[in-house]
Amino acid sequence: MTGTGKLFGVGVGPGDPDLMTLKAARILSRAPVVAYFHKRGRAGHALAIAHAHFRPETLEMPLEYPLTTEVPFQDDAYTSALTGFYDLSSHRIAEALTAGRDVALLCEGDPFFYGSFMHIYHRLSGRHPIEVVPGITGMSACWTRAGTPITYGDDVLQVLPGTLSHEVLLARMRVADALVIMKLGRNFAKVRAALAEAGLTERAIYVERGSMPGEVILPLKDKTGDTAPYFAMILVPGRGRCL
Amino acid sequence: MTGTGKLFGVGVGPGDPDLMTLKAARILSRAPVVAYFHKRGRAGHALAIAHAHFRPETLEMPLEYPLTTEVPFQDDAYTSALTGFYDLSSHRIAEALTAGRDVALLCEGDPFFYGSFMHIYHRLSGRHPIEVVPGITGMSACWTRAGTPITYGDDVLQVLPGTLSHEVLLARMRVADALVIMKLGRNFAKVRAALAEAGLTERAIYVERGSMPGEVILPLKDKTGDTAPYFAMILVPGRGRCL
Repeated sequence: MTGTGKLFGVGVGPGDPDLMTLKAARILSRAPVVAYFHKRGRAGHALAIAHAHFRPETLEMPLEYPLTTEVPFQDDAYTSALTGFYDLSSHRIAEALTAGRDVALLCEGDPFFYGSFMHIYHRLSGRHPIEVVPGITGMSACWTRAGTPITYGDDVLQVLPGTLSHEVLLARMRVADALVIMKLGRNFAKVRAALAEAGLTERAIYVERGSMPGEVILPLKDKTGDTAPYFAMILVPGRGRCL
Repeated sequence: MTGTGKLFGVGVGPGDPDLMTLKAARILSRAPVVAYFHKRGRAGHALAIAHAHFRPETLEMPLEYPLTTEVPFQDDAYTSALTGFYDLSSHRIAEALTAGRDVALLCEGDPFFYGSFMHIYHRLSGRHPIEVVPGITGMSACWTRAGTPITYGDDVLQVLPGTLSHEVLLARMRVADALVIMKLGRNFAKVRAALAEAGLTERAIYVERGSMPGEVILPLKDKTGDTAPYFAMILVPGRGRCL
């Protein structure tokens, strides 16, 4: 291990600052450096959630994602840009750690559940001390706000990224007990069609900005339009026995 | 709505009291009545996690599960005993609410994710105001403590109760990206055999008491014996692309 600083991967939860853990809040109130990912021109959700816990002397380390909106997701240029970005971000964080400073890296939701954090984790693991603090996931906030238990008894929960093909989505949906479908965005129409084909539309709930200002919760069949925000979700609650 | 009290279903997280949310801690420090499920002779995890936030005047309402160890799980007597227990528990909580007192009902992990809370929720929903506070799930604590991201990119996560049959478990495992297998207990040997048949043993991690004293984390292939605690878990991390 080089340096003496420790990296904290801090899950800040789904959006409501009150849904941060006691541990996350304490780490943020003590960390000399707080790093966070953001897109150009936006401070990002994670910073907004966490900011109230910073001290006046907290050093912020913004890590700006490369511009990728013009580049198709499957493109090699996209992959290459992101790989370089995670290399550079890891290097900047490692510099602070080597200088003896602890760094808290903010992670929306839970760091090890579909997070950007793991790309940093894999680069720095074994080279610097790292501690991960779990966070409330976005999906948990969504089913809580929708007022619907997601799984009962023997229900299987499947979490499906909307980026999967129609065929893969449909195969998974045909054996569904409970479903959470994430990463909607431009995949929304494809996901909705697959749910209809699997006969699940009547059970599906659409949630946008769960636990945040501007929250939208409605039956999927009442959702208009063919697009949704990337971080919107669809829930299909399980139907296991209720005692 | 009858009465003026409000029921809070409070997720207290996976075991480490530091992994409770700010919101849960605040509700527990204000609630005049705190209810919790427990087995005879044991105060239970939830109370141990939450107790530090109580005030001297906090009224505790223990809800003792009926003795079911001699009754087979699938038995009608088991179902009937639990149904009566949830009826009675709901009645006791409703009495406090009707008397104008807020009640915080402690829930290990997340209230809407395989929890006992939903049996109370379905009985009192629409009759009394209810607010649910999500919590860090046990599975999230387990993958965090195991130091392994569970899902990347397009990975599908499946959460499988070990109570399912060998055939159902195997069918799910054969299409696995990432898996979390819960409710091990006496199902452990069946689950291990299914994982071996699906060729997943080498990727599987066994976690017992994640984030709690006495924590055990080891490769599944190194786990001896044919039983495990009911709340132990097996994780199979996804292998989606890492940038």
